[in-house]
Amino acid sequence: MMRHRGFILWFTGLSGAGKSTLASRVEQELRERAVPVELLDGDEVRQNLSKGLGFSKEDRDTNIRRIGFVANLLARNHAVAITAAISPYRAIRDEIRGRSNAPFVEVYCECDIDELERRDVKGLYKKARAGLIKNFTGIDDPYEAPEQPEVRVDTHQESEDQSYAKIMTYLESRGYVPPPAEALQLPSEQRQASLKRLKEWGYL
Amino acid sequence: MMRHRGFILWFTGLSGAGKSTLASRVEQELRERAVPVELLDGDEVRQNLSKGLGFSKEDRDTNIRRIGFVANLLARNHAVAITAAISPYRAIRDEIRGRSNAPFVEVYCECDIDELERRDVKGLYKKARAGLIKNFTGIDDPYEAPEQPEVRVDTHQESEDQSYAKIMTYLESRGYVPPPAEALQLPSEQRQASLKRLKEWGYL
Repeated sequence: MMRHRGFILWFTGLSGAGKSTLASRVEQELRERAVPVELLDGDEVRQNLSKGLGFSKEDRDTNIRRIGFVANLLARNHAVAITAAISPYRAIRDEIRGRSNAPFVEVYCECDIDELERRDVKGLYKKARAGLIKNFTGIDDPYEAPEQPEVRVDTHQESEDQSYAKIMTYLESRGYVPPPAEALQLPSEQRQASLKRLKEWGYL
Repeated sequence: MMRHRGFILWFTGLSGAGKSTLASRVEQELRERAVPVELLDGDEVRQNLSKGLGFSKEDRDTNIRRIGFVANLLARNHAVAITAAISPYRAIRDEIRGRSNAPFVEVYCECDIDELERRDVKGLYKKARAGLIKNFTGIDDPYEAPEQPEVRVDTHQESEDQSYAKIMTYLESRGYVPPPAEALQLPSEQRQASLKRLKEWGYL
């Protein structure tokens, strides 16, 4: 198994912009590359850490700070923490970035709101327009786009594959994740012998 | 650096029984042995994950479940998660044990309540007896001792060093933590060469 430094991969963007889809593709790929990784998605976190919180600015901020707290614990212990909450407020994202003990990689999933309303996969925009959901980001609640995200994907113009490739290329070019196993072309026998020896000594 | 499987070291016991003291000694020692470790103490968790929760049974259970959730995320990503909350209810501790994806080591810090009231380092027992603090474990709130903890320390009868040694001996005997560096007596040159090679290949 490989040893990694850990980092936070922070997705942000409107509902339906592709955060969860891209986040779980990256998660799956990193698992295949033997990288310790956790995806903290909005629903799981609300269930386990933030039950009882609503969608007021204060409650949203608390929820996002909790995600940031847990992501930082993971990242500074050499795991990759992927988050995929809307996280609409710039100040809170920047606060979490500032507190992080590991690299913070912000991925802005950009998508035209007209396009999101047209797709409306979960029917949420329609409900928000009808006033059935209050404090819906992009409709009656603000979304503050990142000014200098490490990665910017445009899920209206790009295919999912293109957006995904942008993210992986960034992570590989920075050395944050190892290339896929088949690209490593390691001298297999020597490597196995070294690994075996280190295991015998209690390392690995 | 070493590679570890991760586990949860769960301290439980009455207020003043020595949980935090022993937990932070273990934490410090593991850091010195290059083991990734986090101490989730009661106060830090209440600040970052459980603000707004009180001390009713329901709120306590929620707080302990959150600690368990985070501890499990850390432990399954190869870090050691040490917790030091009173965690008075057996069913909740056992629930967290059951959900854990990594070894769960329960350390019961036993201490006679008369002795704790005599010491009363923080003056909390006096306040609880006077009714100034409500729902105080051991006074007007129950504490359910573990039936089969992995480690049992008696901080009334034992010295701090004795209790600490019991815990470390258990962890070392199970292979959960490596022995101190000076005890390893590794063949240093060979080891360095192997480590160097693995680093060049992107491992470690």
